[in-house]
Amino acid sequence: MTLTPEQLAQIEEERAAQRPTRRAVSEGMEAHLYTAYPVLDHGFIRVIDYMGDDAAICQAARVSYGRGTKSVQNDEGLIRYLMRHWHSTPFEMCEIKLHVKLPVFVARQWIRHRTANVNEYSARYSILDREFYVPEPDALAAQSSTNNQGRGAVLQGEEAARVLDILKRDANRAYDHYEEMLGTDGQQGLARELARMNLPASIYTQWYWKTDLHNLLHFLRLRADSHAQMEIRVYAEAIAKCVKDWVPAAYAAFEDYRMGGATLSAGALGCLRRMLDGETVTQETSGMSKGEWREFEAILARR
Amino acid sequence: MTLTPEQLAQIEEERAAQRPTRRAVSEGMEAHLYTAYPVLDHGFIRVIDYMGDDAAICQAARVSYGRGTKSVQNDEGLIRYLMRHWHSTPFEMCEIKLHVKLPVFVARQWIRHRTANVNEYSARYSILDREFYVPEPDALAAQSSTNNQGRGAVLQGEEAARVLDILKRDANRAYDHYEEMLGTDGQQGLARELARMNLPASIYTQWYWKTDLHNLLHFLRLRADSHAQMEIRVYAEAIAKCVKDWVPAAYAAFEDYRMGGATLSAGALGCLRRMLDGETVTQETSGMSKGEWREFEAILARR
Amino acid sequence: MTLTPEQLAQIEEERAAQRPTRRAVSEGMEAHLYTAYPVLDHGFIRVIDYMGDDAAICQAARVSYGRGTKSVQNDEGLIRYLMRHWHSTPFEMCEIKLHVKLPVFVARQWIRHRTANVNEYSARYSILDREFYVPEPDALAAQSSTNNQGRGAVLQGEEAARVLDILKRDANRAYDHYEEMLGTDGQQGLARELARMNLPASIYTQWYWKTDLHNLLHFLRLRADSHAQMEIRVYAEAIAKCVKDWVPAAYAAFEDYRMGGATLSAGALGCLRRMLDGETVTQETSGMSKGEWREFEAILARR
Amino acid sequence: MTLTPEQLAQIEEERAAQRPTRRAVSEGMEAHLYTAYPVLDHGFIRVIDYMGDDAAICQAARVSYGRGTKSVQNDEGLIRYLMRHWHSTPFEMCEIKLHVKLPVFVARQWIRHRTANVNEYSARYSILDREFYVPEPDALAAQSSTNNQGRGAVLQGEEAARVLDILKRDANRAYDHYEEMLGTDGQQGLARELARMNLPASIYTQWYWKTDLHNLLHFLRLRADSHAQMEIRVYAEAIAKCVKDWVPAAYAAFEDYRMGGATLSAGALGCLRRMLDGETVTQETSGMSKGEWREFEAILARR
Repeated sequence: MTLTPEQLAQIEEERAAQRPTRRAVSEGMEAHLYTAYPVLDHGFIRVIDYMGDDAAICQAARVSYGRGTKSVQNDEGLIRYLMRHWHSTPFEMCEIKLHVKLPVFVARQWIRHRTANVNEYSARYSILDREFYVPEPDALAAQSSTNNQGRGAVLQGEEAARVLDILKRDANRAYDHYEEMLGTDGQQGLARELARMNLPASIYTQWYWKTDLHNLLHFLRLRADSHAQMEIRVYAEAIAKCVKDWVPAAYAAFEDYRMGGATLSAGALGCLRRMLDGETVTQETSGMSKGEWREFEAILARR
Repeated sequence: MTLTPEQLAQIEEERAAQRPTRRAVSEGMEAHLYTAYPVLDHGFIRVIDYMGDDAAICQAARVSYGRGTKSVQNDEGLIRYLMRHWHSTPFEMCEIKLHVKLPVFVARQWIRHRTANVNEYSARYSILDREFYVPEPDALAAQSSTNNQGRGAVLQGEEAARVLDILKRDANRAYDHYEEMLGTDGQQGLARELARMNLPASIYTQWYWKTDLHNLLHFLRLRADSHAQMEIRVYAEAIAKCVKDWVPAAYAAFEDYRMGGATLSAGALGCLRRMLDGETVTQETSGMSKGEWREFEAILARR
Repeated sequence: MTLTPEQLAQIEEERAAQRPTRRAVSEGMEAHLYTAYPVLDHGFIRVIDYMGDDAAICQAARVSYGRGTKSVQNDEGLIRYLMRHWHSTPFEMCEIKLHVKLPVFVARQWIRHRTANVNEYSARYSILDREFYVPEPDALAAQSSTNNQGRGAVLQGEEAARVLDILKRDANRAYDHYEEMLGTDGQQGLARELARMNLPASIYTQWYWKTDLHNLLHFLRLRADSHAQMEIRVYAEAIAKCVKDWVPAAYAAFEDYRMGGATLSAGALGCLRRMLDGETVTQETSGMSKGEWREFEAILARR
Repeated sequence: MTLTPEQLAQIEEERAAQRPTRRAVSEGMEAHLYTAYPVLDHGFIRVIDYMGDDAAICQAARVSYGRGTKSVQNDEGLIRYLMRHWHSTPFEMCEIKLHVKLPVFVARQWIRHRTANVNEYSARYSILDREFYVPEPDALAAQSSTNNQGRGAVLQGEEAARVLDILKRDANRAYDHYEEMLGTDGQQGLARELARMNLPASIYTQWYWKTDLHNLLHFLRLRADSHAQMEIRVYAEAIAKCVKDWVPAAYAAFEDYRMGGATLSAGALGCLRRMLDGETVTQETSGMSKGEWREFEAILARR
């Protein structure tokens, strides 16, 4: 992570200042505020602001269900009920704003989550810094031979060295030429909005990203999943740690019902019933395709 | 406004409690928090939570424009620039959560603003209260004879009395029957989700409504406008007062560029140039329809 | 369903006219176009327009996955794969536009699905017709004694008769007064935007509603579910019949993975593994609450 | 534009096939369907599907306003009225689906329009082609000295040649290394999801992009504007040509009220009134900042 001494000083200053508020306060989240948590080689996430807490979720649910929610004794039980029955609107009543520094190829995946507010650093207005993602050796994975979007074994030795060399040299050469095209202060160089096109997808950008808790959990479910690309998963994991301290009951329910849960098809449920009745079901007798059967077995084997 | 003593006591309690936070705090908004401002005969709006302030808008804009925003000296100037050029994303970085009590026919207009989070009191789960909107005598307007969706003169004397009598009697009779159909505690009456269909659109509902500042200002532009139905306009006006204290610079820019501004067509701009050149332009020579010309004249005459 | 002879003639005319197009055509959907399918006593749904078909879903998926999708041999297999892995964007590439006539209390539930385009009949501009939903005798359910939002046994005999009588009389009286307040043509009556507030939630409104297939299937999952209120479920079921003919492969996958499927929590999956290993698991030893356990048993018992 | 003979043959085939439909047909749009219109050096836009036409906009508006719209005699007048009063929902009743090939840095701007459905070619699954945007000599603009996001004079002679040389060489070298890292068929090279990070923002991607007419017009207003970056503006202009033939009345209203129109602030309207009264207003006496005054003068001078 590359934060200038000025930036670090500003973060310290922001963290030191406290003011009274009448709003809901999450002590767990207050402890994280403004701190930049490193992700990848130059990236970070930091929480800039938040709205609401576990109690705010329940408060909103109780407006909806009125006297009807009296039966659920406590907040934790109510939150589990809401999560189990996909009642998403109470979770939308919490909001988070993050400052994220991330490589452009990660940003391109991330931005596909449309229900969010974004202010990204503009390379039309301003000049990007010389910072590129270069994977750690243990992240230099080969293409998976079985999964079109997956990774296989880690590259070793000379092959790994060659790849790292290419990534570094090409990125630096591209940046040298970017600067050269922009010209020095005295000159009138190429427009920034054009010069930027020479820069690779490994370059870092940054943005403010704001979303509600329901959409954030959906983001985490997809991006903290083991099938997500590692370079976005580490961001999701860093965010998840903050969320856990922000809304502990909601996060626990999320872990049980979403991250650790699984959706089974009508066909899979049918097989399950036969298996519980003592029948031995195989892929051939399951009615499922090979792919589905493999996934079904993985769910049952999961620990 | 009908708040029970318990509710009023709870509001006072919420207002009294203050806790330290590291987040951005808007002093102007803190003063409004939780207070229920009466609207219509039984309704209210109250701010439950907020995120951000004027500085947060600028902070987000400066992430986007990076070093490029150094030229704008101060926050107020930057906010005016953003508003003038329809740069909406920095305004999306502020968020507000309101508790609103409102008649169902107002709620039906309001909900058409889709970019918001809502938890509404559910008449499937719970029993609605006996509270109906009955207009003040000076709001009992006749149908406009020129505008299909407008109001004309205020009804007077016997005609007004008759209308008020109908509204009150029908609402109360409908509610009596609602209660009767639901049955008393001992009995198994009609399902709530069915019995509610007997209630008129003047009955009050309530919800938590959360949206970002950009979408809130869009809501205010449409609903605080003189063409909006009075019964929703008074809600927009009550909210606007809170917004003015929350983000004073953003609200001032909004008043200048949106509420007090006007959009002119290419044709209207052409007429304007001719008029500035000393030509007398009439509807006949304007190229505009009668309706457009009338609106154009109104914009120029506005004070 | 109350369509005037003029409306029926217009529908016949629309159905008779055919024109050549280069666009994707779904034969199954063409057969449904414009036909009004009755729902409840005065309502209907009819498909006004559509975009795309099963092949369009695959076409979009193949743009995303490029050469990577060659491995999936056929469209049906690809669509099942997309549905199973929650790849929602290809389903968003199909669009449908419906004309729906429905009671206001149903419309209020329906509109909570925000990702859709809506043009509703405006009671500010125009006068509503005298049409109210009055349940069939077998739909006159009592409040459930176990479920706050559910229905119990059907009301019988005098109790049923009394409820029907109330609903009809109150609705008609409210409408009589609505007309009276609006005044006759010669008079200047109460503004429409005010008079409408006297009308009950059982009155019919209508709208054009347009959404994409992904969001439509989400709507159907929630509203064609057995826990949905019957009065909206019948609309969802009528729409589902059209969708089945429009995109047969997508609809079949939806039935298997969504309507007939179930999501199990990490805790439930753990119990399942123990049961498959031969252990007898009870609610007490399951780690689940009573409510969760009841739902878990229901999933396993489902046929 | 680089379409393979196979792709061109497929487009011809798609264009040749016509089938009868009962849906609304726009003859103007049918003529454009599937044809790939070249944009920049390797890009294109082509319309894949559409829903609705000018009449469909009016049909939806008439559902809303019921008998109230009878006063507007014809469709064109109604569409102008809707556009003038920002009644956006009837325009949402039309939908378009485009296939677009575009450089990544253009795609990154484009995707910020969130209300759209997208399926993009995935460089995790598949291998990108060796196609990069290299500007035409007359597009090689210098950075503007007055506008942080603008362009100044066109680079000339050696400077231009040097820039073009850098862009081409760096892009090709990056692609050579991309291929090298991916490995040949026999080998297990670097995972595609990693190798892609070496590619510059000038590389072409492609996507299916679907949106409704209201959001499309908003996109065109921002991206066909003279302040938009040229490389996205040419896409907006190519799309605009198709839209003009698809919904001629809506497009004409859009040109008059949006593209050719202007929004004036309350302050600017006040100045205008003083000017029409014969007063000479200068920036100093206007109450506007220098920037605002410059923009105000530009609006009045526009021809």
